Amino acid sequence: MRRLLSFVAAATLVFSCLPSSALADEGMWTFDNFPSAKVKQAYGFAPSRQWLDHVRLASLRAPGCSASFVSPDGLVMTNHHCVVNCLAQLSTAQKNYAENGYYAQRREDEIRCPNFELYQLAGISDVTKTVQGAIAGKTGAAANAALREVTLREEQSCGSDPSVRCQVVPLYHGGIYDLYRYKRYDDVRLAFAPEFSVAQFGGDPDNFNFPRFDYDMSLVRAYENGKPAASPDYFSWSANGSTIGELVFVPGNPGGTSRELTTAELAYERDYALPAAVAQSEELRGILAEFMRRGAEQRREANERLFLLENGIKVQRGRRLALVDPAFFGTKVRDEKKLRAAVAAKPALRQYASAWTEIERLQPLRQSIARRAAAATAATPGLLGIAVTLVRAADERTKPNAQRLPEFTDLNLPRLQRALLTPAPHYPDLDEIDLAFRLSKLRETLGTDDPLVKAFLGTASPDELAHRLVSETKLGDPAVRKSLYDGGKDAIAASTDPMIVMARNLDPQLRALRKDVEDRITAPSRAAAERIAKARFAVYGTKLDPDATFTLRLSYGTVKGFPNESNVEVPPYTTIGGLFERATGADPYVLPKSWLDAKSSLNLSTPMNLTTTNDIIGGNSGSPLIDQRGQIVGLAFDGNIYSLGGDYGYDPVRNRMIAVDSRAMLEALTKVYHADRLVAEITAARSR
Amino acid sequence: MRRLLSFVAAATLVFSCLPSSALADEGMWTFDNFPSAKVKQAYGFAPSRQWLDHVRLASLRAPGCSASFVSPDGLVMTNHHCVVNCLAQLSTAQKNYAENGYYAQRREDEIRCPNFELYQLAGISDVTKTVQGAIAGKTGAAANAALREVTLREEQSCGSDPSVRCQVVPLYHGGIYDLYRYKRYDDVRLAFAPEFSVAQFGGDPDNFNFPRFDYDMSLVRAYENGKPAASPDYFSWSANGSTIGELVFVPGNPGGTSRELTTAELAYERDYALPAAVAQSEELRGILAEFMRRGAEQRREANERLFLLENGIKVQRGRRLALVDPAFFGTKVRDEKKLRAAVAAKPALRQYASAWTEIERLQPLRQSIARRAAAATAATPGLLGIAVTLVRAADERTKPNAQRLPEFTDLNLPRLQRALLTPAPHYPDLDEIDLAFRLSKLRETLGTDDPLVKAFLGTASPDELAHRLVSETKLGDPAVRKSLYDGGKDAIAASTDPMIVMARNLDPQLRALRKDVEDRITAPSRAAAERIAKARFAVYGTKLDPDATFTLRLSYGTVKGFPNESNVEVPPYTTIGGLFERATGADPYVLPKSWLDAKSSLNLSTPMNLTTTNDIIGGNSGSPLIDQRGQIVGLAFDGNIYSLGGDYGYDPVRNRMIAVDSRAMLEALTKVYHADRLVAEITAARSR
Repeated sequence: MRRLLSFVAAATLVFSCLPSSALADEGMWTFDNFPSAKVKQAYGFAPSRQWLDHVRLASLRAPGCSASFVSPDGLVMTNHHCVVNCLAQLSTAQKNYAENGYYAQRREDEIRCPNFELYQLAGISDVTKTVQGAIAGKTGAAANAALREVTLREEQSCGSDPSVRCQVVPLYHGGIYDLYRYKRYDDVRLAFAPEFSVAQFGGDPDNFNFPRFDYDMSLVRAYENGKPAASPDYFSWSANGSTIGELVFVPGNPGGTSRELTTAELAYERDYALPAAVAQSEELRGILAEFMRRGAEQRREANERLFLLENGIKVQRGRRLALVDPAFFGTKVRDEKKLRAAVAAKPALRQYASAWTEIERLQPLRQSIARRAAAATAATPGLLGIAVTLVRAADERTKPNAQRLPEFTDLNLPRLQRALLTPAPHYPDLDEIDLAFRLSKLRETLGTDDPLVKAFLGTASPDELAHRLVSETKLGDPAVRKSLYDGGKDAIAASTDPMIVMARNLDPQLRALRKDVEDRITAPSRAAAERIAKARFAVYGTKLDPDATFTLRLSYGTVKGFPNESNVEVPPYTTIGGLFERATGADPYVLPKSWLDAKSSLNLSTPMNLTTTNDIIGGNSGSPLIDQRGQIVGLAFDGNIYSLGGDYGYDPVRNRMIAVDSRAMLEALTKVYHADRLVAEITAARSR
Repeated sequence: MRRLLSFVAAATLVFSCLPSSALADEGMWTFDNFPSAKVKQAYGFAPSRQWLDHVRLASLRAPGCSASFVSPDGLVMTNHHCVVNCLAQLSTAQKNYAENGYYAQRREDEIRCPNFELYQLAGISDVTKTVQGAIAGKTGAAANAALREVTLREEQSCGSDPSVRCQVVPLYHGGIYDLYRYKRYDDVRLAFAPEFSVAQFGGDPDNFNFPRFDYDMSLVRAYENGKPAASPDYFSWSANGSTIGELVFVPGNPGGTSRELTTAELAYERDYALPAAVAQSEELRGILAEFMRRGAEQRREANERLFLLENGIKVQRGRRLALVDPAFFGTKVRDEKKLRAAVAAKPALRQYASAWTEIERLQPLRQSIARRAAAATAATPGLLGIAVTLVRAADERTKPNAQRLPEFTDLNLPRLQRALLTPAPHYPDLDEIDLAFRLSKLRETLGTDDPLVKAFLGTASPDELAHRLVSETKLGDPAVRKSLYDGGKDAIAASTDPMIVMARNLDPQLRALRKDVEDRITAPSRAAAERIAKARFAVYGTKLDPDATFTLRLSYGTVKGFPNESNVEVPPYTTIGGLFERATGADPYVLPKSWLDAKSSLNLSTPMNLTTTNDIIGGNSGSPLIDQRGQIVGLAFDGNIYSLGGDYGYDPVRNRMIAVDSRAMLEALTKVYHADRLVAEITAARSR
């Protein structure tokens, strides 16, 4: 369904140009380059350094999502759909939190989410010179190795405290490198989540549409040393919510945009990458939907996967439709021509002129070697992917830190271990159809006679192989995974687990494919993109925001409706009353009993969802919507259909963010869920 | 899977231009405009009028396919995949002909195929003046009505003998209208079909690929008055088969090409129609594949649908890939520019100059009203579609013949009745998931708030509605359908069958949608296309073949391999030995027991499949491949991957037809199937 989950595009490697983007409200700005003066000019309010620092520290990054502190005691607000994975992992056939929601009556009832971390951006420093210096003059594998090494060195400079993490963030596709220092919370517990049906009301049909009526919120809490974390920087709750036309801000972590890609790269997305991705996702969607018809247990098992998949399909489809729109693509072509003309006109910039054709020449490699590598990776889902990681980890851990693949460096191993050893359940029936599907896609993509296909399948059919691997493997047991991980190379070599055996056989080929892509596509793309970035700085300066990178950004905008396809203006607010009117009682328009029971007590005119002009994208899910006092007036959870083209460019006329209204959140927490202790915590924060 | 089933594109209404098509071997020629002189020049052999007449009369049209007489006693050769529908209809859980094949030991064991008709093209006459005169000066609904009326009049001129049928065939998208007179055979019986696994060996992964190893043949027999039909014009069997470089011909019924479409229409196909069709088909593919995992019976029920669907997906995908290829599309753009320039240059042709922009302006209507109408039609599959037809038939039959929708005229009613009243089985479980899927797509395409969506669903979910309709309807019983059909308006009005009730409610809206498309898109597209056709005749004459229309055509070519993606030449022949080598024993590379048992007796060097340069397309499935003596050297069943762009243009370098070799057909009929009486009949024909 809907939603602004981080959905990183197939290619996010390059850079393009001339934005028609003196455009109102466009931009996902870094906190150290926020255009306060421009906002002041348009809206009469300039965020101060102090304001920006407070907002930055109250904002959080969550898995694929954003979040924020809403009390001084570590209480965190995010979307329901940002905790569906946690809910699925905590659910059993008996306690179906994924479907029925959860409320911890007492603080001690808050349950830890496996694999759920929060990151607070504590500081930013510029390391551009160091990084660019390290890779200068190198190409291909040498450039990759140098970048890997300097990145590792910079990130290790933050020390080994597990509550501190550093990340080298390439902005403007390598035009700038920043070192982001994070405070990390790895003990995060579920305090409240509503029922799936009201959180995702309208399901896939309403996803990316508006009017909307979704109670897509949840509350979790960050813990430190087993106690609620102290969070002195938090957002208090607005007493009155927002009004039409009001200036509002969204701090959050947009996952990735492609606004700086060249038209050659965009054409590849439009003609090859996106259609192939949609087709494959649609087939899996059919498989999952039909699997879920087998019974209630299958429905529970696959619900989250289907939800994420359908959301992804809408995103991919919307992006493709933006790119086939001649007006939209025409703007990209014109912008690129304009920048290239500016480069050609200045002798000092001519060194950058060939970068665009270099990128164009790389595109056919994406259709051959990158597609092959991607198909191979996709064919190792679930436990088979874990088997590959175990095999690889045994190898990598014997190497010096600087020579390892990035995910196996000392800094990253703790996260890798946690992912490998999580007790989250596996469902053999679901795993089997998923693996069979991916193996059949591998064969379809590469052809029966491809050596890689033969290495995977031998003489078996995809169904046969998937059945054998899934039914015979013991990797579903975390203890088995732990002993293989701890046992290292000897344990891996001695294992007869069929998935480990398969992974052992495949790993050399999978590594070779990956390296081929990195050396022949990634490195030269990055080098060309960096040159385009330099050309762009020379022509435009940093008046433009960099492509999103799933790091903290701030966007500004106003509460505003939009003209629909028939040019009728859609008003920006819906109400709780509208939710009840839309409820047919048939999926996905079903209200849970809790809401039906509470109807008479609810103020039906309370604003339910709202639209704003903030420029956001997948990854912004769970971002707070705040006013200029820094108080919460909403919770971002979606964009309208026109927001999907936002991957490539911002349309101020129709692109709208969709949020849950702060007033509806409190109204239902109080009257539907009687979550009194959490309401008291939030509103106490307000009164301070 | 694979194959040249008639697969008519979303749009087949217009016309374009300058072919780079002095191109070797291009063309699907009508029998009255065959370029014998050009063939003579290239290959030293000019088909005579007598030769052409004999070939025309020995060739047949079958449902979605082509076929040919191979004995004087009505024995007919076609593909296995052209009789899968018949096999599915005749199969039960006990007698699974669809999987295991069928051989009638004695002539009296030949079983009638429901809904299987053969058409022999007996004569062609030109009615262009009459038809164009009738619609001259009319637009929109008036033009449609006039065309319908004159078509009806011409087709009725052949009289009411059910064994004679006439059809007005628009060629060059209305540039020429011909009246085709057919001899019709409606009693067609199954004589031989092999096992599914060897007929479709390699399944979807090998579909549209080569090398191939498919025994995709079947034999049926035309009957008249309960006796084998006399077929004095038939193809005898070549004693020695073909050789590399030999001149070969393919008479058959290519279903439809889009070579004359304007670039605006092709861009619409590329950007909207084809991606949407692929996405929807892929989802249904997933649903069917997972449905078939429920058990053997479900596998049997859905196998044919999945087969046709996967074939369609490959076709659509191949077409889209041809259109996104800049070189391919660039040729279309250049050809169009050249013709438009020629039109602009001659004062006498300037009347045609605006036709291209008229067509361009119609394209947005396809995305709005045509898409809506198509979604509504797609949402009435199976028995619900039959319900709509019953409701409509009751109405239409009360009208004068000339005012009815075309499918309800006196001429067409017998066919309609047979389709309505066929005893072919329905499978409620399969019907239910299919209907639920289509209803959910309707909602997805048009949105929850669309009035048509509300008319379909009310407050129900797609799953609920599909379950209710399928479980409560009695229309699965042919006797119920017959009584509703015979009972006319009163019976329909009195019916409480939920599908009839639904169809009654929906029919006015469905009719209105259809009329809107016909009046606002079809009629003006046809008018503009006709003008382009006239411009094209004026510039190029009729040296070009018209777009395919699922009517009899003749193509010429040679036995030839092709360069693959890596520019390695693929040889044109495979062998029976290669089939055994490729058999892994896992689906879809399984050989049936009959072949494994016969292996030692088979000559493994016998050619199995072969490729030729003949220009063919979906609908050519089952076409005989004949040499210049008119003897059978093969049986067309597929094209390679490059043939899929053939919808829009012919690529002489790589586009190849794939056929079963005549030698393999006879070898296996003799040694695997011991089909002695049929072998005797075929080879007796040869010796004559």
